[in-house]
Amino acid sequence: MSLSVKPIEITKVSEGGSKVIPDLMAVEEPLEIRIGYGALGERQQKSLSVTMRTPGHDYELAIGFLFTEGIIDAYDQVELIKYCEDAGRQEERENVVRIELKPGVNFDLSKLQRNFYTSSSCGVCGKSSIEAVHVTCTQIQDNINIERKVIHGLSDKLRDAQQIFEHTGGLHAVGLFDLSGKLLLTREDVGRHNAMDKIVGACLFKNVIPLSKTILLVSGRASFELVQKGLRAGVPIMAAVGAPSSLAVTLAKDLGMTLLGFVRGGSFNIYCGAQRIDSKRL
Amino acid sequence: MSLSVKPIEITKVSEGGSKVIPDLMAVEEPLEIRIGYGALGERQQKSLSVTMRTPGHDYELAIGFLFTEGIIDAYDQVELIKYCEDAGRQEERENVVRIELKPGVNFDLSKLQRNFYTSSSCGVCGKSSIEAVHVTCTQIQDNINIERKVIHGLSDKLRDAQQIFEHTGGLHAVGLFDLSGKLLLTREDVGRHNAMDKIVGACLFKNVIPLSKTILLVSGRASFELVQKGLRAGVPIMAAVGAPSSLAVTLAKDLGMTLLGFVRGGSFNIYCGAQRIDSKRL
Repeated sequence: MSLSVKPIEITKVSEGGSKVIPDLMAVEEPLEIRIGYGALGERQQKSLSVTMRTPGHDYELAIGFLFTEGIIDAYDQVELIKYCEDAGRQEERENVVRIELKPGVNFDLSKLQRNFYTSSSCGVCGKSSIEAVHVTCTQIQDNINIERKVIHGLSDKLRDAQQIFEHTGGLHAVGLFDLSGKLLLTREDVGRHNAMDKIVGACLFKNVIPLSKTILLVSGRASFELVQKGLRAGVPIMAAVGAPSSLAVTLAKDLGMTLLGFVRGGSFNIYCGAQRIDSKRL
Repeated sequence: MSLSVKPIEITKVSEGGSKVIPDLMAVEEPLEIRIGYGALGERQQKSLSVTMRTPGHDYELAIGFLFTEGIIDAYDQVELIKYCEDAGRQEERENVVRIELKPGVNFDLSKLQRNFYTSSSCGVCGKSSIEAVHVTCTQIQDNINIERKVIHGLSDKLRDAQQIFEHTGGLHAVGLFDLSGKLLLTREDVGRHNAMDKIVGACLFKNVIPLSKTILLVSGRASFELVQKGLRAGVPIMAAVGAPSSLAVTLAKDLGMTLLGFVRGGSFNIYCGAQRIDSKRL
């Protein structure tokens, strides 16, 4: 099995001197996601994406990616998921995941062009990016309310649960919490979008999407892409240890998500959706 | 002109209470890169990529992207670069950059498939990713040597120069230094690969590629992709404030780059290429 950490010998340098010591690195390897689709007798396959990821939870990553990109709408559209046996070496085999859609499921190749938001017109702007997201995500309706102290505890809990980061200092993490602040699930990856897709994939396997009544915490900054993936999973409250971008805030606001930033120890910022936080006292 | 920061009103929450205050966010907007190519009278155009970026230095970003992806080999292959005038609204126009290659320049569409490292075979692994990089990057030959104290000062200098981060806390930065530790150039972006492409693009404009006798510092972690872009620009020493990934180290080692991590104040780690650092004393 591919490992998530790898040993290395490094030279540690300080002002006083230097020494050669053993250390651990976060593993980064490509994962190719292939999809099989079409009616029986007319099956086709296509390579969807190669993402640089940390090995582990690869099936979750692949399924989560398909869902957050809008290619599938539910796990029951999938016939099977497996490592690609056609690949020669064991090392390669574990870097190619193949997902077979059920024969009746419509596979829309144009969904893959998502990154080319405006393929038919010349213009591209944040507004058109957001309109593209509206197509696949629905308005967040969760009428929930949590106390601020729940948020204060989140970042320490996520950090405590980050096993690979502990060893390497080199990974992004995403944590899923219930409304009392209990950590339900955490995933780590060199790519923050991968950590998010792994969480969403795990929730698809557990059949708990949409993720109403949950809080999602990301270890870094909140980008447009991360908010989009969170919206697709139906998360009502998204929190980031770092700052959000302008487009992340606009998108969250548009679709009714609560977005928090700089969630560290005893303080945080609310960028939109303040009605879900401590509404009796704020 | 599109701005790099945007005002917002946020609710700042601490254990003691909360208050609504004005704040600034790092702007994130899509940038579409379009390319025009072909012989005179047979010109064609293609949309290459949409990247989520912080507006500013867009021409550098576009040119840098083309170069680090191996689509062009030098700035003199470019006939002109401009915002796309066909787009309707001003806002959209500044999010589409169009680069016209000179009529004689060969444009290889297959280069765009770089992310699909192994389109013809089933296998994909770190090894094949690295082999793909070998095609466009040459071995780093710089026989330079710097004192450790030069490295110790880098992270503070980059942080001091980060204007947008200062206001928003929300941006990655890349800094280019000479061998005495003097900061030559810095670029910021919500995407770390964009900040890197902006640096490389600026250096192409100045005609100083390959970047021999320089040190490049990235504000976050060193991924495979960032090391690849650095190698393409011929950087002999790459340093990161965060950790490198396993594949980043393997790639740097393979192509003779010195890779440093956790470069903070008075200490750092050498992952490979130690002969360039303080070789008289280490």
